[in-house]
Amino acid sequence: MQLYYWPSLPGRGEYVRWVLEDLGLAYDDVARREGPGAVMAMLKASDGPPVLAPPILVDGERRLFQTPNICVYLARTYGDLAEEHLPEVLQQQLVVLDLVTETHDTHHPTTTTLSYEEQREAALVRAVPFRELRLPKFLGFAERVLASHGGDWVVGDRCTPADLAWAHTVRGLRHAFPRAMARVEAGTPTLSALVDRVVERPRLAAYLASERAIDFNAHGIFRRYPELDDPT
Amino acid sequence: MQLYYWPSLPGRGEYVRWVLEDLGLAYDDVARREGPGAVMAMLKASDGPPVLAPPILVDGERRLFQTPNICVYLARTYGDLAEEHLPEVLQQQLVVLDLVTETHDTHHPTTTTLSYEEQREAALVRAVPFRELRLPKFLGFAERVLASHGGDWVVGDRCTPADLAWAHTVRGLRHAFPRAMARVEAGTPTLSALVDRVVERPRLAAYLASERAIDFNAHGIFRRYPELDDPT
Repeated sequence: MQLYYWPSLPGRGEYVRWVLEDLGLAYDDVARREGPGAVMAMLKASDGPPVLAPPILVDGERRLFQTPNICVYLARTYGDLAEEHLPEVLQQQLVVLDLVTETHDTHHPTTTTLSYEEQREAALVRAVPFRELRLPKFLGFAERVLASHGGDWVVGDRCTPADLAWAHTVRGLRHAFPRAMARVEAGTPTLSALVDRVVERPRLAAYLASERAIDFNAHGIFRRYPELDDPT
Repeated sequence: MQLYYWPSLPGRGEYVRWVLEDLGLAYDDVARREGPGAVMAMLKASDGPPVLAPPILVDGERRLFQTPNICVYLARTYGDLAEEHLPEVLQQQLVVLDLVTETHDTHHPTTTTLSYEEQREAALVRAVPFRELRLPKFLGFAERVLASHGGDWVVGDRCTPADLAWAHTVRGLRHAFPRAMARVEAGTPTLSALVDRVVERPRLAAYLASERAIDFNAHGIFRRYPELDDPT
Protein backbone atom coordinates (compact mmCIF):
# COMPACT_ATOMS: atom_id res chain seq x y z
CA MET A 1 0.00 0.00 0.00
CA GLN A 2 1.29 3.47 -0.90
CA LEU A 3 0.35 6.81 0.60
CA TYR A 4 0.98 10.03 -1.30
CA TYR A 5 0.91 13.21 0.73
CA TRP A 6 3.00 16.38 1.12
CA PRO A 7 6.04 15.33 3.14
CA SER A 8 6.59 18.50 5.19
CA LEU A 9 3.35 18.81 7.15
CA PRO A 10 0.91 16.53 8.98
CA GLY A 11 -2.14 18.02 7.23
CA ARG A 12 -5.00 15.81 6.08
CA GLY A 13 -2.59 12.97 5.37
CA GLU A 14 -2.10 12.53 9.10
CA TYR A 15 -5.69 11.28 9.48
CA VAL A 16 -4.88 8.49 7.04
CA ARG A 17 -1.56 7.72 8.74
CA TRP A 18 -3.28 7.30 12.11
CA VAL A 19 -5.65 4.73 10.64
CA LEU A 20 -2.85 2.87 8.86
CA GLU A 21 -0.72 2.85 12.01
CA ASP A 22 -3.55 1.88 14.34
CA LEU A 23 -4.43 -1.05 12.08
CA GLY A 24 -0.78 -2.09 11.98
CA LEU A 25 -0.70 -1.95 8.18
CA ALA A 26 2.57 -1.70 6.27
CA TYR A 27 2.64 1.27 3.91
CA ASP A 28 5.10 3.20 1.84
CA ASP A 29 4.85 6.94 2.57
CA VAL A 30 6.17 7.66 -0.90
CA ALA A 31 6.74 11.42 -0.79
CA ARG A 32 8.59 11.12 2.52
CA ARG A 33 11.21 9.16 0.57
CA GLU A 34 11.02 10.84 -2.82
CA GLY A 35 9.86 14.37 -2.09
CA PRO A 36 6.71 16.27 -3.12
CA GLY A 37 7.28 15.57 -6.80
CA ALA A 38 5.88 12.10 -6.17
CA VAL A 39 2.53 13.67 -5.23
CA MET A 40 2.56 15.91 -8.29
CA ALA A 41 3.34 12.94 -10.53
CA MET A 42 0.40 10.99 -9.10
CA LEU A 43 -1.96 13.93 -9.65
CA LYS A 44 -0.88 14.08 -13.30
CA ALA A 45 -0.78 10.34 -13.93
CA SER A 46 -2.90 9.28 -16.89
CA ASP A 47 -2.41 5.51 -16.55
CA GLY A 48 -5.36 4.87 -14.25
CA PRO A 49 -8.32 6.40 -12.46
CA PRO A 50 -7.82 10.17 -12.08
CA VAL A 51 -7.27 11.61 -8.59
CA LEU A 52 -7.88 15.23 -7.68
CA ALA A 53 -5.90 15.97 -4.52
CA PRO A 54 -3.81 14.34 -1.79
CA PRO A 55 -3.93 12.39 0.44
CA ILE A 56 -4.05 9.55 -2.09
CA LEU A 57 -3.94 5.88 -1.15
CA VAL A 58 -2.93 3.31 -3.73
CA ASP A 59 -4.07 -0.19 -2.84
CA GLY A 60 -3.56 -2.59 -5.73
CA GLU A 61 -5.61 -1.32 -8.66
CA ARG A 62 -7.37 1.24 -6.51
CA ARG A 63 -6.45 4.89 -6.24
CA LEU A 64 -8.47 6.46 -3.48
CA PHE A 65 -8.58 10.03 -2.29
CA GLN A 66 -10.67 12.27 -0.02
CA THR A 67 -9.56 11.76 3.57
CA PRO A 68 -12.77 10.40 5.16
CA ASN A 69 -13.22 8.06 2.21
CA ILE A 70 -9.74 6.57 2.63
CA CYS A 71 -10.10 6.22 6.40
CA VAL A 72 -13.44 4.42 6.12
CA TYR A 73 -12.15 2.24 3.28
CA LEU A 74 -9.20 1.08 5.41
CA ALA A 75 -11.38 0.34 8.44
CA ARG A 76 -13.89 -1.63 6.33
CA THR A 77 -11.27 -3.52 4.35
CA TYR A 78 -8.57 -4.20 6.93
CA GLY A 79 -10.22 -3.43 10.27
CA ASP A 80 -13.28 -4.58 12.14
CA LEU A 81 -15.62 -1.69 11.33
CA ALA A 82 -19.14 -3.08 11.52
CA GLU A 83 -21.14 -2.38 8.37
CA GLU A 84 -24.10 -1.19 10.43
CA HIS A 85 -21.92 1.56 11.91
CA LEU A 86 -20.60 2.86 8.60
CA PRO A 87 -23.03 5.81 8.28
CA GLU A 88 -22.41 7.02 11.82
CA VAL A 89 -18.63 6.69 11.48
CA LEU A 90 -18.64 8.45 8.14
CA GLN A 91 -20.72 11.37 9.37
CA GLN A 92 -18.36 11.87 12.29
CA GLN A 93 -15.41 11.86 9.89
CA LEU A 94 -17.18 14.46 7.76
CA VAL A 95 -17.89 16.65 10.79
CA VAL A 96 -14.22 16.52 11.74
CA LEU A 97 -13.17 17.45 8.20
CA ASP A 98 -15.56 20.40 8.27
CA LEU A 99 -13.87 21.51 11.47
CA VAL A 100 -10.47 21.04 9.82
CA THR A 101 -11.53 23.29 6.95
CA GLU A 102 -12.78 25.97 9.33
CA THR A 103 -9.56 25.73 11.33
CA HIS A 104 -7.50 26.21 8.20
CA ASP A 105 -9.64 29.23 7.25
CA THR A 106 -8.74 31.00 10.50
CA HIS A 107 -5.21 31.60 9.19
CA HIS A 108 -6.17 31.68 5.50
CA PRO A 109 -9.57 33.43 5.51
CA THR A 110 -9.18 35.14 2.15
CA THR A 111 -7.31 32.82 -0.18
CA THR A 112 -4.83 29.96 -0.11
CA THR A 113 -2.75 31.73 -2.76
CA LEU A 114 -1.48 34.33 -0.26
CA SER A 115 0.59 33.79 2.89
CA TYR A 116 -0.79 34.17 6.39
CA GLU A 117 1.09 37.42 6.81
CA GLU A 118 -0.62 38.86 3.72
CA GLN A 119 -4.09 38.17 5.13
CA ARG A 120 -3.36 38.65 8.82
CA GLU A 121 -5.90 41.42 9.31
CA ALA A 122 -8.71 39.27 7.92
CA ALA A 123 -7.46 36.34 10.01
CA LEU A 124 -7.72 38.38 13.19
CA VAL A 125 -11.38 39.02 12.38
CA ARG A 126 -12.18 35.45 11.30
CA ALA A 127 -10.55 33.82 14.34
CA VAL A 128 -12.93 35.48 16.82
CA PRO A 129 -16.17 33.71 15.84
CA PHE A 130 -14.20 30.52 15.28
CA ARG A 131 -12.96 30.53 18.88
CA GLU A 132 -16.14 31.83 20.45
CA LEU A 133 -18.84 30.05 18.44
CA ARG A 134 -17.50 27.31 16.21
CA LEU A 135 -15.03 25.58 18.54
CA PRO A 136 -17.62 25.22 21.33
CA LYS A 137 -20.21 24.10 18.80
CA PHE A 138 -18.07 21.36 17.23
CA LEU A 139 -16.43 20.09 20.41
CA GLY A 140 -19.71 20.34 22.30
CA PHE A 141 -21.27 18.21 19.60
CA ALA A 142 -18.61 15.51 20.06
CA GLU A 143 -19.21 15.67 23.81
CA ARG A 144 -22.96 15.20 23.28
CA VAL A 145 -22.37 12.27 20.93
CA LEU A 146 -20.14 10.53 23.46
CA ALA A 147 -22.57 11.27 26.31
CA SER A 148 -25.63 10.18 24.29
CA HIS A 149 -24.67 6.52 24.29
CA GLY A 150 -22.43 6.51 27.32
CA GLY A 151 -19.66 4.41 25.84
CA ASP A 152 -15.92 4.76 25.52
CA TRP A 153 -16.02 5.41 21.78
CA VAL A 154 -17.80 7.79 19.43
CA VAL A 155 -19.69 5.05 17.56
CA GLY A 156 -20.60 1.62 18.90
CA ASP A 157 -18.43 -0.20 21.40
CA ARG A 158 -15.03 -0.14 19.74
CA CYS A 159 -12.49 2.30 18.41
CA THR A 160 -13.16 3.47 14.83
CA PRO A 161 -11.53 6.03 12.54
CA ALA A 162 -14.01 8.55 13.98
CA ASP A 163 -12.27 8.36 17.37
CA LEU A 164 -8.87 8.74 15.76
CA ALA A 165 -10.04 11.75 13.75
CA TRP A 166 -11.48 13.52 16.79
CA ALA A 167 -8.36 12.79 18.86
CA HIS A 168 -5.91 14.07 16.26
CA THR A 169 -8.03 17.17 15.72
CA VAL A 170 -8.25 18.01 19.42
CA ARG A 171 -4.46 17.65 19.66
CA GLY A 172 -4.04 19.92 16.66
CA LEU A 173 -6.39 22.51 18.11
CA ARG A 174 -4.52 22.40 21.43
CA HIS A 175 -1.35 23.17 19.49
CA ALA A 176 -2.93 26.03 17.51
CA PHE A 177 -5.21 27.58 20.16
CA PRO A 178 -3.87 26.53 23.58
CA ARG A 179 -5.78 29.22 25.51
CA ALA A 180 -9.10 28.80 23.70
CA MET A 181 -8.88 25.03 23.97
CA ALA A 182 -8.21 25.16 27.73
CA ARG A 183 -11.42 27.18 28.02
CA VAL A 184 -13.52 24.99 25.70
CA GLU A 185 -12.23 21.65 26.99
CA ALA A 186 -13.27 22.62 30.51
CA GLY A 187 -16.76 21.84 29.20
CA THR A 188 -15.89 18.69 27.24
CA PRO A 189 -14.28 16.26 29.72
CA THR A 190 -15.58 13.17 27.93
CA LEU A 191 -13.96 14.24 24.68
CA SER A 192 -10.68 15.01 26.48
CA ALA A 193 -10.75 11.52 28.00
CA LEU A 194 -11.31 10.06 24.53
CA VAL A 195 -8.14 11.75 23.29
CA ASP A 196 -6.13 10.11 26.10
CA ARG A 197 -7.70 6.74 25.36
CA VAL A 198 -6.78 6.98 21.66
CA VAL A 199 -3.16 8.09 22.03
CA GLU A 200 -2.53 5.37 24.59
CA ARG A 201 -3.36 2.68 22.07
CA PRO A 202 -0.07 0.79 21.73
CA ARG A 203 0.42 1.13 17.97
CA LEU A 204 -0.51 4.82 17.97
CA ALA A 205 1.68 5.53 21.00
CA ALA A 206 4.60 3.85 19.23
CA TYR A 207 3.88 5.81 16.06
CA LEU A 208 3.71 9.14 17.86
CA ALA A 209 7.05 8.43 19.52
CA SER A 210 8.64 7.49 16.19
CA GLU A 211 10.32 9.55 13.50
CA ARG A 212 7.47 8.69 11.15
CA ALA A 213 5.18 11.16 12.92
CA ILE A 214 5.53 14.76 11.75
CA ASP A 215 5.12 17.34 14.52
CA PHE A 216 2.70 20.19 14.07
CA ASN A 217 4.61 23.04 12.48
CA ALA A 218 4.15 26.33 10.62
CA HIS A 219 2.54 24.59 7.63
CA GLY A 220 -0.78 22.90 7.09
CA ILE A 221 -3.91 23.09 9.16
CA PHE A 222 -2.94 23.48 12.81
CA ARG A 223 -0.56 26.44 13.21
CA ARG A 224 0.20 28.42 16.31
CA TYR A 225 -0.27 32.14 15.76
CA PRO A 226 -0.73 33.47 19.31
CA GLU A 227 -2.56 36.57 18.06
CA LEU A 228 -5.37 34.31 16.75
CA ASP A 229 -5.87 32.63 20.11
CA ASP A 230 -7.87 33.91 23.10
CA PRO A 231 -6.38 37.10 24.58
CA THR A 232 -4.14 36.47 27.60
CA MET B 1 -38.62 8.55 6.03
CA GLN B 2 -38.34 12.23 6.96
CA LEU B 3 -36.06 14.87 5.50
CA TYR B 4 -35.27 18.02 7.45
CA TYR B 5 -33.87 20.92 5.46
CA TRP B 6 -34.39 24.67 5.12
CA PRO B 7 -37.60 25.03 3.09
CA SER B 8 -36.74 28.16 1.10
CA LEU B 9 -33.67 27.09 -0.86
CA PRO B 10 -32.42 24.02 -2.76
CA GLY B 11 -29.03 24.05 -0.98
CA ARG B 12 -27.39 20.83 0.13
CA GLY B 13 -30.78 19.28 0.81
CA GLU B 14 -31.40 19.13 -2.92
CA TYR B 15 -28.67 16.49 -3.34
CA VAL B 16 -30.59 14.26 -0.93
CA ARG B 17 -33.93 15.00 -2.62
CA TRP B 18 -32.53 13.94 -5.99
CA VAL B 19 -31.47 10.57 -4.59
CA LEU B 20 -34.81 10.06 -2.82
CA GLU B 21 -36.73 10.98 -5.96
CA ASP B 22 -34.59 8.94 -8.32
CA LEU B 23 -35.04 5.87 -6.10
CA GLY B 24 -38.79 6.48 -6.00
CA LEU B 25 -38.79 6.59 -2.20
CA ALA B 26 -41.66 8.17 -0.27
CA TYR B 27 -40.47 10.86 2.13
CA ASP B 28 -41.88 13.63 4.24
CA ASP B 29 -40.08 16.91 3.55
CA VAL B 30 -40.96 18.09 7.03
CA ALA B 31 -39.90 21.73 6.98
CA ARG B 32 -41.69 22.29 3.67
CA ARG B 33 -44.91 21.61 5.60
CA GLU B 34 -44.03 23.00 9.01
CA GLY B 35 -41.46 25.71 8.32
CA PRO B 36 -37.81 26.09 9.36
CA GLY B 37 -38.65 25.65 13.04
CA ALA B 38 -38.85 21.92 12.36
CA VAL B 39 -35.15 21.94 11.42
CA MET B 40 -34.24 23.94 14.52
CA ALA B 41 -36.20 21.54 16.72
CA MET B 42 -34.37 18.56 15.25
CA LEU B 43 -30.98 20.21 15.84
CA LYS B 44 -31.91 20.75 19.49
CA ALA B 45 -33.58 17.38 20.06
CA SER B 46 -32.12 15.49 23.02
CA ASP B 47 -34.15 12.31 22.62
CA GLY B 48 -31.77 10.49 20.31
CA PRO B 49 -28.43 10.65 18.51
CA PRO B 50 -27.28 14.27 18.20
CA VAL B 51 -27.15 15.87 14.75
CA LEU B 52 -25.06 18.90 13.86
CA ALA B 53 -26.52 20.44 10.72
CA PRO B 54 -29.12 19.89 7.98
CA PRO B 55 -29.83 18.11 5.74
CA ILE B 56 -30.93 15.46 8.22
CA LEU B 57 -32.57 12.19 7.23
CA VAL B 58 -34.59 10.25 9.79
CA ASP B 59 -35.02 6.61 8.83
CA GLY B 60 -36.51 4.62 11.70
CA GLU B 61 -34.11 4.87 14.64
CA ARG B 62 -31.44 6.45 12.51
CA ARG B 63 -30.72 10.15 12.30
CA LEU B 64 -28.23 10.77 9.56
CA PHE B 65 -26.62 13.96 8.42
CA GLN B 66 -23.78 15.14 6.16
CA THR B 67 -24.97 15.20 2.57
CA PRO B 68 -22.63 12.61 0.95
CA ASN B 69 -23.22 10.28 3.87
CA ILE B 70 -27.01 10.40 3.44
CA CYS B 71 -26.83 9.98 -0.34
CA VAL B 72 -24.57 6.94 -0.09
CA TYR B 73 -26.67 5.46 2.72
CA LEU B 74 -29.82 5.70 0.59
CA ALA B 75 -28.16 4.15 -2.44
CA ARG B 76 -26.72 1.28 -0.38
CA THR B 77 -29.91 0.63 1.57
CA TYR B 78 -32.64 1.20 -1.02
CA GLY B 79 -30.80 1.23 -4.34
CA ASP B 80 -28.51 -1.07 -6.22
CA LEU B 81 -25.18 0.54 -5.39
CA ALA B 82 -22.58 -2.21 -5.61
CA GLU B 83 -20.47 -2.45 -2.45
CA GLU B 84 -17.29 -2.61 -4.52
CA HIS B 85 -18.08 0.83 -5.93
CA LEU B 86 -18.73 2.52 -2.61
CA PRO B 87 -15.28 4.16 -2.25
CA GLU B 88 -15.32 5.56 -5.78
CA VAL B 89 -18.89 6.87 -5.43
CA LEU B 90 -18.14 8.41 -2.06
CA GLN B 91 -15.02 10.18 -3.26
CA GLN B 92 -16.93 11.68 -6.17
CA GLN B 93 -19.62 12.90 -3.76
CA LEU B 94 -16.92 14.47 -1.60
CA VAL B 95 -15.34 16.19 -4.60
CA VAL B 96 -18.72 17.64 -5.54
CA LEU B 97 -19.29 18.89 -2.00
CA ASP B 98 -15.86 20.55 -2.04
CA LEU B 99 -16.92 22.31 -5.23
CA VAL B 100 -20.21 23.30 -3.55
CA THR B 101 -18.30 24.85 -0.65
CA GLU B 102 -16.03 26.77 -3.01
CA THR B 103 -19.04 27.95 -5.02
CA HIS B 104 -20.71 29.23 -1.86
CA ASP B 105 -17.49 31.03 -0.89
CA THR B 106 -17.55 33.06 -4.11
CA HIS B 107 -20.50 35.09 -2.78
CA HIS B 108 -19.60 34.71 0.91
CA PRO B 109 -15.79 34.85 0.91
CA THR B 110 -15.42 36.52 4.29
CA THR B 111 -18.10 35.18 6.59
CA THR B 112 -21.56 33.65 6.49
CA THR B 113 -22.70 36.10 9.18
CA LEU B 114 -22.74 39.03 6.72
CA SER B 115 -24.84 39.45 3.58
CA TYR B 116 -23.42 39.26 0.07
CA GLU B 117 -23.75 43.00 -0.29
CA GLU B 118 -21.61 43.55 2.81
CA GLN B 119 -18.74 41.47 1.37
CA ARG B 120 -19.20 42.23 -2.31
CA GLU B 121 -15.70 43.69 -2.79
CA ALA B 122 -14.07 40.54 -1.44
CA ALA B 123 -16.44 38.44 -3.54
CA LEU B 124 -15.34 40.23 -6.71
CA VAL B 125 -11.76 39.23 -5.89
CA ARG B 126 -12.56 35.66 -4.88
CA ALA B 127 -14.71 34.90 -7.92
CA VAL B 128 -11.86 35.42 -10.39
CA PRO B 129 -9.65 32.44 -9.44
CA PHE B 130 -12.78 30.38 -8.92
CA ARG B 131 -13.90 30.96 -12.51
CA GLU B 132 -10.47 30.80 -14.08
CA LEU B 133 -8.78 28.03 -12.11
CA ARG B 134 -11.15 26.09 -9.89
CA LEU B 135 -14.12 25.59 -12.25
CA PRO B 136 -11.92 24.21 -15.05
CA LYS B 137 -10.04 22.06 -12.54
CA PHE B 138 -13.15 20.47 -11.00
CA LEU B 139 -15.18 20.05 -14.19
CA GLY B 140 -12.09 18.92 -16.08
CA PHE B 141 -11.60 16.29 -13.42
CA ALA B 142 -15.15 14.98 -13.91
CA GLU B 143 -14.53 14.92 -17.65
CA ARG B 144 -11.33 12.89 -17.15
CA VAL B 145 -13.11 10.46 -14.83
CA LEU B 146 -15.86 9.86 -17.39
CA ALA B 147 -13.34 9.55 -20.22
CA SER B 148 -11.04 7.24 -18.24
CA HIS B 149 -13.45 4.34 -18.29
CA GLY B 150 -15.48 5.31 -21.31
CA GLY B 151 -18.89 4.56 -19.85
CA ASP B 152 -22.13 6.45 -19.50
CA TRP B 153 -21.78 6.95 -15.74
CA VAL B 154 -19.15 8.32 -13.38
CA VAL B 155 -18.61 5.01 -11.55
CA GLY B 156 -19.23 1.54 -12.94
CA ASP B 157 -21.97 0.84 -15.46
CA ARG B 158 -25.03 2.30 -13.77
CA CYS B 159 -26.30 5.58 -12.39
CA THR B 160 -25.20 6.30 -8.81
CA PRO B 161 -25.59 9.30 -6.49
CA ALA B 162 -22.27 10.55 -7.90
CA ASP B 163 -23.93 11.15 -11.28
CA LEU B 164 -26.85 12.92 -9.65
CA ALA B 165 -24.52 15.12 -7.61
CA TRP B 166 -22.47 16.15 -10.63
CA ALA B 167 -25.59 16.84 -12.70
CA HIS B 168 -27.27 19.01 -10.08
CA THR B 169 -24.03 20.91 -9.51
CA VAL B 170 -23.49 21.61 -13.20
CA ARG B 171 -27.06 22.90 -13.41
CA GLY B 172 -26.49 25.10 -10.39
CA LEU B 173 -23.26 26.46 -11.81
CA ARG B 174 -24.97 27.19 -15.14
CA HIS B 175 -27.53 29.21 -13.18
CA ALA B 176 -24.91 31.11 -11.17
CA PHE B 177 -22.17 31.58 -13.80
CA PRO B 178 -23.81 31.24 -17.23
CA ARG B 179 -20.96 32.89 -19.12
CA ALA B 180 -18.12 31.10 -17.34
CA MET B 181 -19.93 27.78 -17.67
CA ALA B 182 -20.47 28.23 -21.41
CA ARG B 183 -16.71 28.70 -21.69
CA VAL B 184 -15.73 25.80 -19.42
CA GLU B 185 -18.30 23.33 -20.74
CA ALA B 186 -16.95 23.82 -24.25
CA GLY B 187 -14.13 21.60 -22.96
CA THR B 188 -16.25 19.09 -21.04
CA PRO B 189 -18.72 17.62 -23.55
CA THR B 190 -18.87 14.24 -21.81
CA LEU B 191 -19.90 15.85 -18.52
CA SER B 192 -22.53 17.96 -20.29
CA ALA B 193 -23.94 14.81 -21.86
CA LEU B 194 -24.07 13.19 -18.42
CA VAL B 195 -26.23 16.05 -17.15
CA ASP B 196 -28.72 15.45 -19.97
CA ARG B 197 -28.74 11.72 -19.28
CA VAL B 198 -29.46 12.28 -15.58
CA VAL B 199 -32.27 14.83 -15.91
CA GLU B 200 -33.98 12.65 -18.53
CA ARG B 201 -34.39 9.83 -16.04
CA PRO B 202 -38.17 9.51 -15.71
CA ARG B 203 -38.47 9.99 -11.95
CA LEU B 204 -36.09 12.92 -11.90
CA ALA B 205 -37.75 14.53 -14.91
CA ALA B 206 -41.12 14.22 -13.14
CA TYR B 207 -39.65 15.66 -9.95
CA LEU B 208 -38.05 18.62 -11.72
CA ALA B 209 -41.39 19.41 -13.39
CA SER B 210 -43.24 19.19 -10.06
CA GLU B 211 -43.89 21.74 -7.34
CA ARG B 212 -41.69 19.73 -5.00
CA ALA B 213 -38.57 21.02 -6.76
CA ILE B 214 -37.36 24.42 -5.52
CA ASP B 215 -35.88 26.61 -8.26
CA PHE B 216 -32.46 28.16 -7.80
CA ASN B 217 -33.00 31.53 -6.15
CA ALA B 218 -31.20 34.29 -4.26
CA HIS B 219 -30.48 32.00 -1.30
CA GLY B 220 -28.19 29.08 -0.77
CA ILE B 221 -25.28 27.93 -2.87
CA PHE B 222 -25.98 28.74 -6.50
CA ARG B 223 -26.88 32.43 -6.86
CA ARG B 224 -26.72 34.59 -9.93
CA TYR B 225 -24.71 37.75 -9.33
CA PRO B 226 -23.74 38.83 -12.87
CA GLU B 227 -20.77 40.82 -11.58
CA LEU B 228 -19.18 37.58 -10.30
CA ASP B 229 -19.44 35.87 -13.70
CA ASP B 230 -17.09 36.21 -16.68
CA PRO B 231 -17.07 39.77 -18.09
CA THR B 232 -19.36 40.18 -21.12
